[in-house]
Amino acid sequence: MQRPPLKHCHECGKAVVYRLPDDGDTKPRAVCTVCHTVHYENPLNVVGTVPTWGDDGAQVLLCKRNIEPRWGKWTLPAGFMELGETTAEGAARETDEEAGARFEMLGLFTVMNVVRVGQVHLFYRARLLSTAFDPGHETIEARLFTEAEIPWDEIAFRTVKETLERYFADRRRGEFGFHTLDIA
Amino acid sequence: MQRPPLKHCHECGKAVVYRLPDDGDTKPRAVCTVCHTVHYENPLNVVGTVPTWGDDGAQVLLCKRNIEPRWGKWTLPAGFMELGETTAEGAARETDEEAGARFEMLGLFTVMNVVRVGQVHLFYRARLLSTAFDPGHETIEARLFTEAEIPWDEIAFRTVKETLERYFADRRRGEFGFHTLDIA
Repeated sequence: MQRPPLKHCHECGKAVVYRLPDDGDTKPRAVCTVCHTVHYENPLNVVGTVPTWGDDGAQVLLCKRNIEPRWGKWTLPAGFMELGETTAEGAARETDEEAGARFEMLGLFTVMNVVRVGQVHLFYRARLLSTAFDPGHETIEARLFTEAEIPWDEIAFRTVKETLERYFADRRRGEFGFHTLDIA
Repeated sequence: MQRPPLKHCHECGKAVVYRLPDDGDTKPRAVCTVCHTVHYENPLNVVGTVPTWGDDGAQVLLCKRNIEPRWGKWTLPAGFMELGETTAEGAARETDEEAGARFEMLGLFTVMNVVRVGQVHLFYRARLLSTAFDPGHETIEARLFTEAEIPWDEIAFRTVKETLERYFADRRRGEFGFHTLDIA
Protein backbone atom coordinates (compact mmCIF):
# COMPACT_ATOMS: atom_id res chain seq x y z
CA MET A 1 0.00 0.00 0.00
CA GLN A 2 3.08 2.23 0.32
CA ARG A 3 1.57 3.99 3.32
CA PRO A 4 3.46 3.86 6.63
CA PRO A 5 1.59 2.19 9.51
CA LEU A 6 0.16 4.35 12.29
CA LYS A 7 2.09 4.08 15.56
CA HIS A 8 0.06 6.13 18.03
CA CYS A 9 -3.60 6.85 18.77
CA HIS A 10 -4.79 10.24 17.55
CA GLU A 11 -7.23 10.44 20.46
CA CYS A 12 -5.00 9.66 23.47
CA GLY A 13 -1.48 9.32 22.03
CA LYS A 14 -0.84 5.78 23.35
CA ALA A 15 0.43 2.94 21.12
CA VAL A 16 -1.80 1.28 18.52
CA VAL A 17 -1.64 -2.32 17.31
CA TYR A 18 -2.99 -3.63 14.01
CA ARG A 19 -5.69 -6.22 14.77
CA LEU A 20 -9.32 -7.07 14.01
CA PRO A 21 -11.56 -4.68 15.97
CA ASP A 22 -14.13 -6.17 18.35
CA ASP A 23 -17.15 -4.93 16.37
CA GLY A 24 -17.27 -7.69 13.74
CA ASP A 25 -15.07 -5.78 11.27
CA THR A 26 -13.22 -8.22 8.99
CA LYS A 27 -10.13 -6.07 8.32
CA PRO A 28 -7.19 -5.37 10.64
CA ARG A 29 -7.17 -1.75 11.83
CA ALA A 30 -4.88 0.32 14.02
CA VAL A 31 -6.60 -0.08 17.41
CA CYS A 32 -5.44 1.86 20.49
CA THR A 33 -4.09 -0.41 23.24
CA VAL A 34 -5.45 1.95 25.91
CA CYS A 35 -8.63 3.78 24.76
CA HIS A 36 -9.46 1.22 22.01
CA THR A 37 -10.14 3.88 19.36
CA VAL A 38 -10.22 2.24 15.90
CA HIS A 39 -8.35 4.18 13.18
CA TYR A 40 -9.59 3.77 9.61
CA GLU A 41 -7.24 4.31 6.66
CA ASN A 42 -8.81 4.81 3.26
CA PRO A 43 -7.89 5.58 -0.35
CA LEU A 44 -7.17 9.18 -1.34
CA ASN A 45 -8.46 11.06 -4.37
CA VAL A 46 -6.07 12.83 -6.72
CA VAL A 47 -7.86 15.44 -8.87
CA GLY A 48 -6.60 17.24 -11.96
CA THR A 49 -7.38 18.63 -15.39
CA VAL A 50 -6.61 18.18 -19.08
CA PRO A 51 -6.30 21.89 -20.00
CA THR A 52 -6.56 22.37 -23.76
CA TRP A 53 -6.10 25.33 -26.08
CA GLY A 54 -7.85 26.25 -29.30
CA ASP A 55 -11.31 25.57 -30.68
CA ASP A 56 -10.12 22.18 -31.84
CA GLY A 57 -8.30 21.41 -28.56
CA ALA A 58 -5.17 20.50 -30.49
CA GLN A 59 -2.80 21.56 -27.71
CA VAL A 60 -2.62 20.33 -24.11
CA LEU A 61 -0.96 22.08 -21.19
CA LEU A 62 1.66 20.04 -19.32
CA CYS A 63 3.72 21.03 -16.27
CA LYS A 64 7.35 20.03 -15.68
CA ARG A 65 7.58 18.93 -12.06
CA ASN A 66 9.80 20.85 -9.65
CA ILE A 67 9.06 18.41 -6.80
CA GLU A 68 9.58 14.76 -6.02
CA PRO A 69 8.50 12.19 -6.94
CA ARG A 70 9.33 12.36 -10.65
CA TRP A 71 11.22 15.67 -10.51
CA GLY A 72 11.75 17.01 -14.04
CA LYS A 73 9.04 14.81 -15.61
CA TRP A 74 5.90 16.21 -17.27
CA THR A 75 2.43 15.95 -15.78
CA LEU A 76 -1.09 17.24 -16.11
CA PRO A 77 -1.90 19.60 -13.22
CA ALA A 78 -3.19 17.40 -10.36
CA GLY A 79 -2.93 16.84 -6.63
CA PHE A 80 -4.68 15.52 -3.53
CA MET A 81 -8.31 16.52 -3.07
CA GLU A 82 -8.83 18.53 0.12
CA LEU A 83 -11.67 18.70 2.64
CA GLY A 84 -14.10 21.52 1.88
CA GLU A 85 -13.97 21.27 -1.89
CA THR A 86 -15.62 19.22 -4.65
CA THR A 87 -13.59 17.04 -7.02
CA ALA A 88 -13.95 19.73 -9.72
CA GLU A 89 -12.99 22.54 -7.32
CA GLY A 90 -9.90 20.59 -6.26
CA ALA A 91 -8.94 19.96 -9.90
CA ALA A 92 -9.35 23.69 -10.65
CA ARG A 93 -7.30 24.66 -7.57
CA GLU A 94 -4.44 22.37 -8.60
CA THR A 95 -4.52 23.80 -12.13
CA ASP A 96 -4.30 27.30 -10.72
CA GLU A 97 -1.50 26.38 -8.28
CA GLU A 98 0.66 24.35 -10.66
CA ALA A 99 0.15 26.23 -13.94
CA GLY A 100 -1.28 29.65 -13.06
CA ALA A 101 -3.60 29.20 -16.02
CA ARG A 102 -6.90 30.92 -16.85
CA PHE A 103 -9.46 28.30 -17.83
CA GLU A 104 -13.06 27.11 -17.82
CA MET A 105 -13.87 23.70 -16.30
CA LEU A 106 -15.60 21.11 -18.50
CA GLY A 107 -16.82 17.58 -17.70
CA LEU A 108 -15.30 14.69 -15.75
CA PHE A 109 -13.17 12.74 -18.25
CA THR A 110 -11.36 9.87 -16.46
CA VAL A 111 -11.73 7.98 -13.17
CA MET A 112 -8.77 5.66 -12.60
CA ASN A 113 -8.06 3.33 -9.68
CA VAL A 114 -4.43 2.96 -8.62
CA VAL A 115 -4.91 0.25 -6.00
CA ARG A 116 -1.22 -0.31 -5.28
CA VAL A 117 -0.89 3.16 -3.76
CA GLY A 118 -4.48 3.45 -2.48
CA GLN A 119 -5.50 6.29 -4.81
CA VAL A 120 -8.33 7.20 -7.18
CA HIS A 121 -7.36 9.70 -9.89
CA LEU A 122 -10.06 11.91 -11.44
CA PHE A 123 -9.32 14.18 -14.40
CA TYR A 124 -11.62 16.87 -15.81
CA ARG A 125 -11.33 18.47 -19.22
CA ALA A 126 -10.74 22.23 -19.09
CA ARG A 127 -10.68 24.92 -21.79
CA LEU A 128 -7.80 27.38 -21.53
CA LEU A 129 -8.80 31.05 -21.91
CA SER A 130 -5.26 32.33 -22.39
CA THR A 131 -1.79 31.00 -23.24
CA ALA A 132 -0.14 33.05 -20.49
CA PHE A 133 0.87 30.73 -17.63
CA ASP A 134 2.23 31.64 -14.22
CA PRO A 135 3.30 28.37 -12.62
CA GLY A 136 3.86 28.07 -8.86
CA HIS A 137 6.90 26.68 -7.06
CA GLU A 138 5.94 23.06 -7.80
CA THR A 139 6.43 23.59 -11.54
CA ILE A 140 9.64 24.30 -13.50
CA GLU A 141 7.84 25.12 -16.73
CA ALA A 142 4.28 25.04 -18.07
CA ARG A 143 3.78 24.80 -21.84
CA LEU A 144 1.44 23.61 -24.56
CA PHE A 145 2.03 20.41 -26.56
CA THR A 146 0.37 19.07 -29.70
CA GLU A 147 -0.17 15.31 -29.78
CA ALA A 148 2.97 14.89 -31.90
CA GLU A 149 5.01 16.92 -29.41
CA ILE A 150 3.96 15.11 -26.22
CA PRO A 151 7.10 13.72 -24.49
CA TRP A 152 5.56 10.27 -23.98
CA ASP A 153 8.71 8.84 -22.40
CA GLU A 154 8.96 11.72 -19.96
CA ILE A 155 5.43 11.61 -18.52
CA ALA A 156 5.49 11.52 -14.70
CA PHE A 157 2.57 9.19 -13.97
CA ARG A 158 0.77 6.31 -15.64
CA THR A 159 -2.67 7.88 -15.09
CA VAL A 160 -1.51 11.06 -16.84
CA LYS A 161 -0.30 9.05 -19.84
CA GLU A 162 -3.55 7.03 -19.98
CA THR A 163 -5.65 10.21 -19.71
CA LEU A 164 -3.68 11.96 -22.48
CA GLU A 165 -4.01 8.91 -24.76
CA ARG A 166 -7.79 8.88 -24.25
CA TYR A 167 -8.01 12.63 -24.79
CA PHE A 168 -6.30 12.49 -28.19
CA ALA A 169 -8.18 9.32 -29.23
CA ASP A 170 -11.54 10.94 -28.38
CA ARG A 171 -10.48 14.14 -30.16
CA ARG A 172 -9.76 12.16 -33.35
CA ARG A 173 -13.18 10.49 -33.01
CA GLY A 174 -14.73 13.95 -32.68
CA GLU A 175 -16.48 13.15 -29.39
CA PHE A 176 -15.31 13.22 -25.79
CA GLY A 177 -16.55 10.34 -23.65
CA PHE A 178 -16.07 9.36 -20.03
CA HIS A 179 -13.46 6.71 -19.22
CA THR A 180 -12.66 4.43 -16.29
CA LEU A 181 -9.55 2.32 -15.84
CA ASP A 182 -7.96 0.17 -13.14
CA ILE A 183 -4.19 0.21 -12.96
CA ALA A 184 -2.67 -2.85 -11.34
CA MET B 1 -16.70 19.05 8.10
CA GLN B 2 -18.31 16.89 10.79
CA ARG B 3 -14.99 15.17 11.44
CA PRO B 4 -13.45 15.40 14.92
CA PRO B 5 -10.05 17.13 15.09
CA LEU B 6 -6.94 15.03 15.67
CA LYS B 7 -5.48 15.41 19.16
CA HIS B 8 -2.26 13.41 19.06
CA CYS B 9 0.54 12.65 16.58
CA HIS B 10 0.31 9.20 15.00
CA GLU B 11 4.12 9.05 14.81
CA CYS B 12 5.17 9.94 18.37
CA GLY B 13 1.91 10.29 20.32
CA LYS B 14 2.53 13.86 21.52
CA ALA B 15 -0.04 16.67 21.12
CA VAL B 16 -0.80 18.23 17.75
CA VAL B 17 -1.93 21.80 17.05
CA TYR B 18 -3.77 23.01 13.95
CA ARG B 19 -1.58 25.58 12.18
CA LEU B 20 -0.05 26.36 8.79
CA PRO B 21 2.89 23.99 8.23
CA ASP B 22 6.34 25.50 7.53
CA ASP B 23 6.55 24.19 3.96
CA GLY B 24 4.48 26.88 2.24
CA ASP B 25 1.20 24.95 2.57
CA THR B 26 -1.75 27.32 2.63
CA LYS B 27 -4.11 25.21 4.76
CA PRO B 28 -4.00 24.60 8.52
CA ARG B 29 -2.99 21.02 9.35
CA ALA B 30 -2.59 19.03 12.56
CA VAL B 31 1.15 19.49 13.19
CA CYS B 32 2.95 17.65 15.98
CA THR B 33 4.31 20.01 18.67
CA VAL B 34 7.31 17.70 19.24
CA CYS B 35 8.31 15.80 16.06
CA HIS B 36 6.57 18.28 13.67
CA THR B 37 4.89 15.54 11.61
CA VAL B 38 2.15 17.08 9.43
CA HIS B 39 -1.12 15.11 9.37
CA TYR B 40 -3.26 15.41 6.24
CA GLU B 41 -7.02 14.81 6.37
CA ASN B 42 -8.80 14.22 3.09
CA PRO B 43 -12.24 13.36 1.70
CA LEU B 44 -13.41 9.74 1.79
CA ASN B 45 -15.03 7.75 -1.00
CA VAL B 46 -18.32 5.94 -0.43
CA VAL B 47 -18.94 3.26 -3.06
CA GLY B 48 -22.14 1.38 -3.84
CA THR B 49 -24.42 -0.12 -6.46
CA VAL B 50 -27.85 0.23 -8.05
CA PRO B 51 -28.72 -3.52 -8.23
CA THR B 52 -31.57 -4.11 -10.67
CA TRP B 53 -33.69 -7.11 -11.59
CA GLY B 54 -35.20 -8.15 -14.89
CA ASP B 55 -34.25 -7.57 -18.51
CA ASP B 56 -35.96 -4.20 -18.34
CA GLY B 57 -34.41 -3.30 -14.96
CA ALA B 58 -37.83 -2.40 -13.61
CA GLN B 59 -36.99 -3.35 -10.02
CA VAL B 60 -34.23 -2.00 -7.77
CA LEU B 61 -32.85 -3.64 -4.64
CA LEU B 62 -32.94 -1.52 -1.49
CA CYS B 63 -31.71 -2.38 2.01
CA LYS B 64 -33.43 -1.30 5.24
CA ARG B 65 -30.67 -0.09 7.56
CA ASN B 66 -30.05 -1.91 10.83
CA ILE B 67 -27.34 0.59 11.86
CA GLU B 68 -27.07 4.27 12.64
CA PRO B 69 -27.20 6.80 11.13
CA ARG B 70 -30.67 6.53 9.61
CA TRP B 71 -31.63 3.26 11.29
CA GLY B 72 -34.77 1.84 9.66
CA LYS B 73 -34.44 3.94 6.48
CA TRP B 74 -33.89 2.45 3.02
CA THR B 75 -30.62 2.69 1.12
CA LEU B 76 -28.78 1.34 -1.87
CA PRO B 77 -25.93 -0.95 -0.73
CA ALA B 78 -22.90 1.32 -0.14
CA GLY B 79 -20.07 1.98 2.28
CA PHE B 80 -16.56 3.37 2.67
CA MET B 81 -14.01 2.34 0.06
CA GLU B 82 -11.10 0.40 1.60
CA LEU B 83 -7.39 0.27 0.84
CA GLY B 84 -6.52 -2.62 -1.48
CA GLU B 85 -9.63 -2.45 -3.64
CA THR B 86 -10.89 -0.51 -6.67
CA THR B 87 -14.02 1.62 -6.51
CA ALA B 88 -15.94 -1.16 -8.33
CA GLU B 89 -14.54 -3.87 -6.04
CA GLY B 90 -15.56 -1.84 -3.01
CA ALA B 91 -19.06 -1.31 -4.41
CA ALA B 92 -19.37 -5.07 -5.07
CA ARG B 93 -18.09 -5.90 -1.56
CA GLU B 94 -20.67 -3.62 0.06
CA THR B 95 -23.44 -5.14 -2.06
CA ASP B 96 -22.38 -8.59 -0.94
CA GLU B 97 -22.10 -7.57 2.72
CA GLU B 98 -25.33 -5.60 2.98
CA ALA B 99 -27.63 -7.57 0.68
CA GLY B 100 -26.03 -10.99 0.17
CA ALA B 101 -27.03 -10.63 -3.48
CA ARG B 102 -25.69 -12.43 -6.57
CA PHE B 103 -25.00 -9.88 -9.29
CA GLU B 104 -22.87 -8.75 -12.20
CA MET B 105 -21.20 -5.32 -12.06
CA LEU B 106 -21.99 -2.81 -14.82
CA GLY B 107 -20.65 0.72 -15.44
CA LEU B 108 -20.06 3.69 -13.15
CA PHE B 109 -23.35 5.60 -12.99
CA THR B 110 -23.05 8.54 -10.55
CA VAL B 111 -20.21 10.51 -8.94
CA MET B 112 -21.54 12.91 -6.29
CA ASN B 113 -19.67 15.33 -4.07
CA VAL B 114 -20.98 15.78 -0.53
CA VAL B 115 -18.63 18.56 0.57
CA ARG B 116 -20.26 19.20 3.95
CA VAL B 117 -19.18 15.77 5.21
CA GLY B 118 -16.01 15.47 3.12
CA GLN B 119 -17.23 12.56 0.98
CA VAL B 120 -17.44 11.54 -2.66
CA HIS B 121 -20.16 8.97 -3.44
CA LEU B 122 -19.74 6.67 -6.46
CA PHE B 123 -22.54 4.33 -7.56
CA TYR B 124 -22.26 1.57 -10.17
CA ARG B 125 -25.14 -0.13 -11.92
CA ALA B 126 -25.33 -3.89 -11.26
CA ARG B 127 -27.49 -6.63 -12.74
CA LEU B 128 -28.97 -9.06 -10.19
CA LEU B 129 -28.62 -12.76 -11.11
CA SER B 130 -31.10 -13.98 -8.52
CA THR B 131 -33.87 -12.64 -6.27
CA ALA B 132 -32.61 -14.57 -3.26
CA PHE B 133 -30.96 -12.16 -0.81
CA ASP B 134 -29.01 -12.95 2.33
CA PRO B 135 -28.42 -9.61 4.06
CA GLY B 136 -25.76 -9.18 6.73
CA HIS B 137 -26.14 -7.73 10.23
CA GLU B 138 -26.21 -4.14 8.90
CA THR B 139 -29.50 -4.78 7.08
CA ILE B 140 -32.98 -5.49 8.52
CA GLU B 141 -34.48 -6.43 5.17
CA ALA B 142 -33.43 -6.44 1.50
CA ARG B 143 -36.15 -6.31 -1.15
CA LEU B 144 -36.98 -5.24 -4.69
CA PHE B 145 -38.97 -2.10 -5.50
CA THR B 146 -40.52 -0.87 -8.74
CA GLU B 147 -40.33 2.89 -9.33
CA ALA B 148 -43.90 3.28 -8.08
CA GLU B 149 -43.11 1.35 -4.90
CA ILE B 150 -39.93 3.25 -3.90
CA PRO B 151 -40.43 4.73 -0.39
CA TRP B 152 -39.16 8.17 -1.42
CA ASP B 153 -39.79 9.71 2.00
CA GLU B 154 -37.94 6.88 3.75
CA ILE B 155 -34.67 6.99 1.76
CA ALA B 156 -31.65 7.20 4.08
CA PHE B 157 -29.35 9.50 2.10
CA ARG B 158 -29.68 12.30 -0.42
CA THR B 159 -27.15 10.70 -2.81
CA VAL B 160 -29.20 7.48 -2.83
CA LYS B 161 -32.36 9.42 -3.71
CA GLU B 162 -30.56 11.38 -6.45
CA THR B 163 -29.05 8.20 -7.89
CA LEU B 164 -32.42 6.39 -7.89
CA GLU B 165 -34.11 9.36 -9.61
CA ARG B 166 -31.45 9.36 -12.34
CA TYR B 167 -31.69 5.59 -12.74
CA PHE B 168 -35.43 5.64 -13.39
CA ALA B 169 -35.20 8.76 -15.61
CA ASP B 170 -32.49 7.11 -17.75
CA ARG B 171 -34.51 3.88 -17.87
CA ARG B 172 -37.52 5.78 -19.24
CA ARG B 173 -35.24 7.40 -21.83
CA GLY B 174 -33.99 3.93 -22.80
CA GLU B 175 -30.32 4.79 -22.27
CA PHE B 176 -28.13 4.86 -19.17
CA GLY B 177 -25.72 7.78 -18.98
CA PHE B 178 -23.12 8.88 -16.47
CA HIS B 179 -24.04 11.59 -13.98
CA THR B 180 -22.22 13.97 -11.67
CA LEU B 181 -23.75 16.14 -8.96
CA ASP B 182 -22.56 18.39 -6.14
CA ILE B 183 -24.67 18.39 -3.01
CA ALA B 184 -24.35 21.53 -0.90
